[in-house]
Amino acid sequence: MKKPNIVILGAGYGGMMTTVKLQKTLGVNEANITLVNINDYHYQTTWLHENAAGTLHHDRTRIQIKDVINMSKVKFVKDKVISIKPDEKKVKLENGQLDYDVLVIGLGFEAATFGIPGLEEHAFTIGNINSARLIREHMEYNFALYHNESEKNPARLNIVVGGGGFTGVEFLGELANRIPELCEEYDIDKNLVRIINIEGSPTILPGFDPQLVEYAMNSLESRGVEFVTGAMLKECTATSVVYEKNGEITEIPTLTTVWAAGVKANALVEKSGFENNRGKVAVEKDMRAPDYDNVFVIGDCALIMNEQTGRPYPPTAQIAIQQSAVVAHNVKAYIQGGEMEHFEPEILGTVASLGHNDAIGVIFNDQKLFGWKATVMKKIIDNRYLLKLGGLSLLMKKGKFNIFY
Amino acid sequence: MKKPNIVILGAGYGGMMTTVKLQKTLGVNEANITLVNINDYHYQTTWLHENAAGTLHHDRTRIQIKDVINMSKVKFVKDKVISIKPDEKKVKLENGQLDYDVLVIGLGFEAATFGIPGLEEHAFTIGNINSARLIREHMEYNFALYHNESEKNPARLNIVVGGGGFTGVEFLGELANRIPELCEEYDIDKNLVRIINIEGSPTILPGFDPQLVEYAMNSLESRGVEFVTGAMLKECTATSVVYEKNGEITEIPTLTTVWAAGVKANALVEKSGFENNRGKVAVEKDMRAPDYDNVFVIGDCALIMNEQTGRPYPPTAQIAIQQSAVVAHNVKAYIQGGEMEHFEPEILGTVASLGHNDAIGVIFNDQKLFGWKATVMKKIIDNRYLLKLGGLSLLMKKGKFNIFY
Repeated sequence: MKKPNIVILGAGYGGMMTTVKLQKTLGVNEANITLVNINDYHYQTTWLHENAAGTLHHDRTRIQIKDVINMSKVKFVKDKVISIKPDEKKVKLENGQLDYDVLVIGLGFEAATFGIPGLEEHAFTIGNINSARLIREHMEYNFALYHNESEKNPARLNIVVGGGGFTGVEFLGELANRIPELCEEYDIDKNLVRIINIEGSPTILPGFDPQLVEYAMNSLESRGVEFVTGAMLKECTATSVVYEKNGEITEIPTLTTVWAAGVKANALVEKSGFENNRGKVAVEKDMRAPDYDNVFVIGDCALIMNEQTGRPYPPTAQIAIQQSAVVAHNVKAYIQGGEMEHFEPEILGTVASLGHNDAIGVIFNDQKLFGWKATVMKKIIDNRYLLKLGGLSLLMKKGKFNIFY
Repeated sequence: MKKPNIVILGAGYGGMMTTVKLQKTLGVNEANITLVNINDYHYQTTWLHENAAGTLHHDRTRIQIKDVINMSKVKFVKDKVISIKPDEKKVKLENGQLDYDVLVIGLGFEAATFGIPGLEEHAFTIGNINSARLIREHMEYNFALYHNESEKNPARLNIVVGGGGFTGVEFLGELANRIPELCEEYDIDKNLVRIINIEGSPTILPGFDPQLVEYAMNSLESRGVEFVTGAMLKECTATSVVYEKNGEITEIPTLTTVWAAGVKANALVEKSGFENNRGKVAVEKDMRAPDYDNVFVIGDCALIMNEQTGRPYPPTAQIAIQQSAVVAHNVKAYIQGGEMEHFEPEILGTVASLGHNDAIGVIFNDQKLFGWKATVMKKIIDNRYLLKLGGLSLLMKKGKFNIFY
């Protein structure tokens, strides 16, 4: 009997955890497991804003796949996925092709710029290791240039963050810590630097507890962050950002606009012909695509409705990790004929960091946290994931233990 | 009796050491000493190439003036010199004016680009802390950009150094150490990076012992440096460098050209109407300008002929430091009516570093050094200066003690 081919696309939270679980539950004689990823490393998407600000080195954020995956049990292919052909059960890669019996799609997100002119060309996004460390270097380069020009250019020192959601706010917190360091490094007066957040909603972190939102704004404002809420970004150019608020147009000279206001599923999903809802596959309860019973979709590419609120669950690491347990179980059930499980998200809590020494959060549905306690909770969440993914040795290597500063 | 005003322009090797010596030998009742400098720090010009490569932090290279100068004995003015009016005994600053009875001009060097098209606009120079750390950041930014472009641009990874003299070669040595680190930081294959030196003479370090030159070339080539000697730089554009060798024109795509092939005296000297030879003042034996008996010129702004070779002494830190003893003595003699001393350079040795673990040098006129011994000698020279300038405490703070690696 031919061993079934399990192909997992993407080594993000979902794909990586699914692979780890499958390599534990499936013997090498039961299936061929292949993991495909564009890099030979996995990274913690939820830490990228720290790499982008320059407060954490990107090598802390990325994890070599070979350090977590047992290469004698899983075949790892470092390649870029070009297209998926579900009717032929094939995946086209840049340098080859794979046949599968079961497919797991965990290709993650892309920035969504909603057609705002100039954003795609001129704004930075915090999407991966390359784009995150580029933001760090871009800011530093502009600070280094500042005193080398006889006519000082304030646009070099204005940093605009588009979007006051989770990523935007966490990035602002790191910037607030980082900017004073950059000022010292390049002999720049701190008062010349502006960190400006532009958010379309009347408040940052829409949907979050108002008391915690106020706490976050106070914390960030006290460290120099300016908030412009209820404002729509109209345009981004190479040297400025234009927004509209209360019918008034304002232009901010800046060379650094970081767009943190929207993500969408990897465009490959839509291109490959899966039934989708704005790029995402509205998966069945067992995490399978509605039109193909051998294709599972996980993480940011999967759409799951919250029946209580009538809105989709947000694309978070927490949900992707939870899905991996169900996906790994169901992949095994699919090839061995067992019973499928249903996925039910369980939101344990949400914590947003505000730099290395402040945070806000809600856990167990209604318990509010802020300040030191919330920073500790954030690190516990991060460390718990490392433990699940690679055990104690990975936790010791990449964990965050500086809980007392 | 009115106390004479001694004004020292520039806190480079010459101006700084003259000030330190004068504050020791002149009482506060004997003269007003004023030191003018554009920054509130002094820096070791001979270390700037390390800051530019990114192998040494610029805070190791710079020394806060208040840490060396006794501010109760010397008035320090942080300002930019706009012009010198020797007939009126006045110095015009950006934010004020100073009257002097005795003036010491130690305003240092500027890059000389010899009218080569595009050099001034597009090439970097290693002239001060600002321009040095900009080179470091410029290279790093280009490495960070490399993997963020779908079409890879080799110009981001080509680094061209114009000039194989002392500064050029020492910078190449640091680059050879730094580039592998940058490659690791940005996941770039080392073999894609080129470090190219273009030198007009048939050999690098013209005038240096040929055996040591060969040693230096072998050391640098083994670490990936390419030499193009006997070649003239014809043009520098934003994206390339063009040179001619044996009548043939070659263009190298590069975004990083560092011009290290020529310096001239600060243009202020010529503008202020002093009798000069290509911008430099051919000083008398007592270091005074020929046309003004109350104006001393020190360091790179002073021209002193080597009567044995018939050529001027090169503008080095060693000579500027030696001159400061004579200038300080003669300034005191001028205001108190003592006898003037004559300056006679004594070249103790010349050591060129080739990165942190290799060097070449000649000491006591004919003793050749290379490898570890030369690196130790280089550090001894550097440390000796710190000791002279600021005593043991400065040496401990900024000295180079890692002689065993």
